[in-house]
Amino acid sequence: MPAAPSIANSVTVRLELPAAPTAVSNMTSLIEKTGGVVTGLDVTGSGQTRLRVDVTMLTRDPDHADEIVEAIRTLDGVEIGKVSDRTFLLHLGGKLTVESKVPIRTRDDLSLIYTPGVARVCQAIARNPEDARRLTIKRNTVAVVTDGTAVLGLGDIGPLAAMPVMEGKAALFKRFADIDAFPICLDTTDVEEIILTVKAIAPGFAGINLEDISAPRCFEIEERLRQELDIPVFHDDQHGTAIVALAALRNALRVVGKRLEDVRLVMSGAGAAGTAILKLLLHAGARHVVVADVAGVIHAGREDVSCGDYPNQTWIAEHTNEQGMTGTLSEAMAGADVFLGVSAPNVLTEADVASMAPDSVVFAMANPTPEIDPEIAARHAAVVATGRSDFANQINNVLVFPGVFRGLIDAASRHVTMDVLLAAADALADVVGEDERNATYIIPSVFNPDVSTVVADAVRRTVLAHSAGEPPALPDPTARPDASVTA
Amino acid sequence: MPAAPSIANSVTVRLELPAAPTAVSNMTSLIEKTGGVVTGLDVTGSGQTRLRVDVTMLTRDPDHADEIVEAIRTLDGVEIGKVSDRTFLLHLGGKLTVESKVPIRTRDDLSLIYTPGVARVCQAIARNPEDARRLTIKRNTVAVVTDGTAVLGLGDIGPLAAMPVMEGKAALFKRFADIDAFPICLDTTDVEEIILTVKAIAPGFAGINLEDISAPRCFEIEERLRQELDIPVFHDDQHGTAIVALAALRNALRVVGKRLEDVRLVMSGAGAAGTAILKLLLHAGARHVVVADVAGVIHAGREDVSCGDYPNQTWIAEHTNEQGMTGTLSEAMAGADVFLGVSAPNVLTEADVASMAPDSVVFAMANPTPEIDPEIAARHAAVVATGRSDFANQINNVLVFPGVFRGLIDAASRHVTMDVLLAAADALADVVGEDERNATYIIPSVFNPDVSTVVADAVRRTVLAHSAGEPPALPDPTARPDASVTA
Repeated sequence: MPAAPSIANSVTVRLELPAAPTAVSNMTSLIEKTGGVVTGLDVTGSGQTRLRVDVTMLTRDPDHADEIVEAIRTLDGVEIGKVSDRTFLLHLGGKLTVESKVPIRTRDDLSLIYTPGVARVCQAIARNPEDARRLTIKRNTVAVVTDGTAVLGLGDIGPLAAMPVMEGKAALFKRFADIDAFPICLDTTDVEEIILTVKAIAPGFAGINLEDISAPRCFEIEERLRQELDIPVFHDDQHGTAIVALAALRNALRVVGKRLEDVRLVMSGAGAAGTAILKLLLHAGARHVVVADVAGVIHAGREDVSCGDYPNQTWIAEHTNEQGMTGTLSEAMAGADVFLGVSAPNVLTEADVASMAPDSVVFAMANPTPEIDPEIAARHAAVVATGRSDFANQINNVLVFPGVFRGLIDAASRHVTMDVLLAAADALADVVGEDERNATYIIPSVFNPDVSTVVADAVRRTVLAHSAGEPPALPDPTARPDASVTA
Repeated sequence: MPAAPSIANSVTVRLELPAAPTAVSNMTSLIEKTGGVVTGLDVTGSGQTRLRVDVTMLTRDPDHADEIVEAIRTLDGVEIGKVSDRTFLLHLGGKLTVESKVPIRTRDDLSLIYTPGVARVCQAIARNPEDARRLTIKRNTVAVVTDGTAVLGLGDIGPLAAMPVMEGKAALFKRFADIDAFPICLDTTDVEEIILTVKAIAPGFAGINLEDISAPRCFEIEERLRQELDIPVFHDDQHGTAIVALAALRNALRVVGKRLEDVRLVMSGAGAAGTAILKLLLHAGARHVVVADVAGVIHAGREDVSCGDYPNQTWIAEHTNEQGMTGTLSEAMAGADVFLGVSAPNVLTEADVASMAPDSVVFAMANPTPEIDPEIAARHAAVVATGRSDFANQINNVLVFPGVFRGLIDAASRHVTMDVLLAAADALADVVGEDERNATYIIPSVFNPDVSTVVADAVRRTVLAHSAGEPPALPDPTARPDASVTA
């Protein structure tokens, strides 16, 4: 599956060429022949014998772009100028802006939003801290926190290099759930320092979205923060992935007419995402799960499991593989109904998929290269999904985190429970109507306008049901006379 | 100086009253008689015998608003409905929003700002961390950091209650210098935890604005952060106040025809602002300064100074009061040319001001109540300034911090030096032209559009002069072919 030319690798080449009848068409044909896709051509200047042209094209990757530029350079009379990268142009200056919601035009405006007027608002919050959820941005603000140790498939690239991803995530929060999110990229990878820092900055936020923190540190960081903070903490790489995977699996099983309780599932990967998916599957009712990691099927007898040094593996051994299966991933696949991979490229063979039960389901979610080429898997499996946007059934966290946080914030939730995750997954699955559902459409598009509101509503209702009703009624802090306002 | 009715205490009262010819005018006269100022009147509903009216008025404070409402209630046939507070209404939901600068309409947009396109931007920054200043919001983003221990004149009200001030500050950064600022309110008052936290979150910011942190912790926190971070750290309560005070003093001395080098200055207050003002005055050339705190004039022989337990007082004793003056603030005032107060309400008497040299200057900057009523001071002093917006010559940090940070960011500065502070003060002073300058106009309005650009320019030029030229030339990260872009 070589990468196709894509918008993510779009470049604009400024060049000059002879004002000859075929010069432009020779160039564009050469680009197409070298594998580029021309998407735009602007003549930006013209003389008696020369043209200046900006040609924009999709390429496969930067090396491919270089190759095309070098090919153009060989054309008679062509001179290459600046080569611009559309992705980089778009990132210039960053992707977020912080704006004032209130006008500041006059001295009166200053007196209202700053001194002296602001003092009364401060005093009201000092008397009743819950009013911060009404009178400050805490009402609608989420921190997107990373230490840059597990960014996309790039690994430990550090906090500065992680910024573009966290900014992008914040932009998605706004676009899909109208949440104000702000990136916090941490210059430490120490568990205690991360916990201390997130706790210290927590007051101004309604929730914490942990992101791209490597395992196993991410488990302890999330666990501790959940215990020690009074706002929801959600590690998206774990739970966002788990929710969207379960939602897709619900619909995949509907397509093939099987029940979660009955199917035999084989998972590849026991990292952050794998463990979260497993826990949510079990909470949703799955009973026959076998998990494999790099050392093969996880079972209680394996030395690295029984020694207790890997609490995550020990937990998995205790809660899966009730038949005590041993051996390789490949051996576990024989007769399985479902494969869920969040592990590594190409760990699955065509024969593995062929050995599964009839009407099998394969989710090969490793990024950017799946556990098996989805086109090969589709020769044998009834339903195939990946993490890639250039194939049907993309398992994409963007479907989940905006709506989940919208629901948590709207319910003024202090926690995230397994029931909340399950409700989000079920709501997301149900966005795909029975009349739409088929093997190539088990999960809605991220641009489906219903997704985040449906997920948010399910989350909000679940939180409120468990806290027995509406959030506690607070006095209206804008009303007077009222103790919360009187100075 | 009792407070006048102000916009900061504006309320809207919804009420019903009889549809009688004089009912409305009776009500408005009653409001005016009770000391309120009616600014708006809307009839929002009408029946055969009744009117529903929203009346908006300025009041002195919440107690005064209560008093007016109770007075209206005594009118025949009047029924009071909801009473809304304009300041609180404006704060509902907070004052800031985080927006995406890039559109997210299509799958292509997603591919550019998020996966897979964003990965190449991350890799470019991982290779060349300085590119973060071009390709992320670090380019233009400042953290407004507080622990809520010294907020306005309210004292230690904690991080949640400090939020409205920090949000207001962020809004002012945007309004006056187009800087993206974000409030970080810390749930700790421990010096080491604050230092650790600010260092941890620093990567995403181009500068740190410390705010409303109580002395003496603020000194150590700023000092340590300046040593340990590679971005400028600026405690606005110290240096913002110092810059605007020096700027105002420059012009006040021009008005009275005296030189900073020659005048005898008496300061009241040795806290964060007082110490910063002192240091900047000395750096600017002042030679005859005496500082008083609650225990009187600071001199080397005072027990609390000589014991060494108060390093700040010891430093002051070593750098001021060359004549070894002892005694009270009042005694020090005799014959002084300038009084600068950043201390407590009403510590100065009319007799103290009367005892000063001819053409004296009095800056009574304690907030909200000055060291002396400025109208009383003006009976004897040639120039009087305060921190209040309802009197001439307001010493207001809003004149300073936006431009200072704009200049620091534009110069990619890693530090703040005394020369930068001095340059900012001199530039701010010079915004007031010779033809405009007089005893009631020694400092420009915050809405003067030149202020922040003039200050920014002076700061930027000072930073670059000291770093010997323009900031280091970096490769253009949007251009290809280029090592910083090739994946």
